[in-house]
Amino acid sequence: MAHALALAARGLGNTWPNPAVGCVILAGGAETGGPDRGRIVGRGFTQPGGRPHAERLALDMAGAAARGGTAYVTLEPCAHHGKTPPCAEALIAAGVARVVTALTDPDPRVAGKGHAMLRAAGIAVTEGVMEDAARRLNAGFLKRVTRGLPFVTLKMAATLDGRIATASGESRWLTGSGARRAVHAMRMRHDAVMVGAGTARADDPDLTVRDIGARHQPVRIVIDSRLAHSPDSRLGRSARDVPIWMLHSPDAPAPSRAAWAATGAELIEVPAQDGRVDLRAALGALAGRGLTRVLCEGGGQLASALVGAGLVDELAVYHAGCLIGAEGAPVLGPLGIGPLADAPRPRLLDVTALGPDALTRWAF
Amino acid sequence: MAHALALAARGLGNTWPNPAVGCVILAGGAETGGPDRGRIVGRGFTQPGGRPHAERLALDMAGAAARGGTAYVTLEPCAHHGKTPPCAEALIAAGVARVVTALTDPDPRVAGKGHAMLRAAGIAVTEGVMEDAARRLNAGFLKRVTRGLPFVTLKMAATLDGRIATASGESRWLTGSGARRAVHAMRMRHDAVMVGAGTARADDPDLTVRDIGARHQPVRIVIDSRLAHSPDSRLGRSARDVPIWMLHSPDAPAPSRAAWAATGAELIEVPAQDGRVDLRAALGALAGRGLTRVLCEGGGQLASALVGAGLVDELAVYHAGCLIGAEGAPVLGPLGIGPLADAPRPRLLDVTALGPDALTRWAF
Repeated sequence: MAHALALAARGLGNTWPNPAVGCVILAGGAETGGPDRGRIVGRGFTQPGGRPHAERLALDMAGAAARGGTAYVTLEPCAHHGKTPPCAEALIAAGVARVVTALTDPDPRVAGKGHAMLRAAGIAVTEGVMEDAARRLNAGFLKRVTRGLPFVTLKMAATLDGRIATASGESRWLTGSGARRAVHAMRMRHDAVMVGAGTARADDPDLTVRDIGARHQPVRIVIDSRLAHSPDSRLGRSARDVPIWMLHSPDAPAPSRAAWAATGAELIEVPAQDGRVDLRAALGALAGRGLTRVLCEGGGQLASALVGAGLVDELAVYHAGCLIGAEGAPVLGPLGIGPLADAPRPRLLDVTALGPDALTRWAF
Repeated sequence: MAHALALAARGLGNTWPNPAVGCVILAGGAETGGPDRGRIVGRGFTQPGGRPHAERLALDMAGAAARGGTAYVTLEPCAHHGKTPPCAEALIAAGVARVVTALTDPDPRVAGKGHAMLRAAGIAVTEGVMEDAARRLNAGFLKRVTRGLPFVTLKMAATLDGRIATASGESRWLTGSGARRAVHAMRMRHDAVMVGAGTARADDPDLTVRDIGARHQPVRIVIDSRLAHSPDSRLGRSARDVPIWMLHSPDAPAPSRAAWAATGAELIEVPAQDGRVDLRAALGALAGRGLTRVLCEGGGQLASALVGAGLVDELAVYHAGCLIGAEGAPVLGPLGIGPLADAPRPRLLDVTALGPDALTRWAF
């Protein structure tokens, strides 16, 4: 199962709206002690765009060797006819003797039906193996299906005293090349990268994945209530190369809508609250379009609004060996915290040295 | 030598004004391949208060077995008659055949005379073994002797967004018990613990080492230009149990001086600049009294003043898994940085997970 989970992880960021699943098939004889006992005959993970499914690839690789074998799958095999035939049927047809899964698929079209279909065909099914790890891996898919929201990772890159720019607004290249590569790798493991309008204006980023052999690009998202960011920005000029979704309020002026639409960007109107895009509604709209994992890269106002609304699941903090002092711009805007007991308290996941910088990851 | 350095480290914080030295003696025969070849017969490190010296202890332990042996010492043996006879003479008298050292003692009373004395007696001397490690270990002593200043470690404990208190000033217990124990262990490895008057007033700390079997307490120092901190504070009430040094400006009012003197605290008058204690002069006064390693625990104003004046050597940042937002009090006050290129850029030493908190250490 650990092997299947590692395979599954390779699909992260590239399978939405589907989950990133991994499948490993062991040859028949694993139970009977035959000569092929435990030999891996098939491997697969969900392919770009969510198809083919992991089981289909692993079964194709295994061919006849799947008969009498054991399939390890990180998620319950699907039981419904979608754009592909159900994987449960495929496993039955291939004649596997046993299926081991980590997690029940909460998708109401599956939700135990896959397991039931396998058992009805006489296959021995073991559920819940390495369930916690599979739940972490699929947190985005699970949250989309069960709560209608994507898993949100918030990236913060700051000085040791929590600043992102000098008083005059100078901010570029706080962190080193190791941190930059790690950020690009993070982008690739997410379905989309999101920034606020202020960061889009200040940094004119293009938010693509570079320098690490990326074969796909996450969707680029700007939360821009009034569509104030220039369509002639890097984001606007590259809208036909890599998808860009502009999330705006109903108040966004018609000329700005027209100008952004002309770039090839997708415009998504979201209900507003106090004149700004309602973030829960915005994330709901993203999940509704199939996104399971969204990486927010700032700025401070969007970050604090997301944290304040309890919409962040994981926090990745890159601390640069640098001090700017209290005049600098803060990495996080106001949170409106009263007593300290009300402050968000994420749990430490791990710490990593990245060349000159330190990365700490935290879970909410 | 690695063993000798590890022994030396046990004295850190407890040997001032002397350096923390380690000494290991190998039995004679190390060179000739005799039966005792390489056997450790003596070990020592500088004892509390700086005496006895490491060599003296190691020689006493070795006794006659030192004859013809090799002594590894982390610092050049002393050559002058101070409160103890010179260690170079003791090594000669014990008949060691070879002395290996890591570092030349920059103290002008030694400064190569120890090595010369040993060589003049026919002892083979090898210098500079693991010199970098010895230089780091003795950074405090070396800085005191060569620059008249102590090594300064700045501790910062903050939320992930660089805050130390809510808008209303609530701040206690941001970090967990692991971080607190690590801070107490840090205190014990320093000669003194220092805070500003604001922190003394806000937190009423006692700045002692607790809960880790401490056998000595660092000197407690408050930088308090006008002696505004109450003599009836925890610090004032415990001044007869653990030394407390109050560093104040020439403007400190006579009644405050009298009240603090009555507690048993030592009052140290330091030249002022713009009405506040001049920090370089303050640290010079501390080095003049023999301190080699000072741990500054804040607050934000003292921290930024020390950083801004280039007086900090090492930075230890405890990041708690907590977010307070931009309304919170910053961990570092204003630095007056212009271009980003002028911002201090400490180098990452290491990263550690401490239960729920992350510790990163940085060198200037």
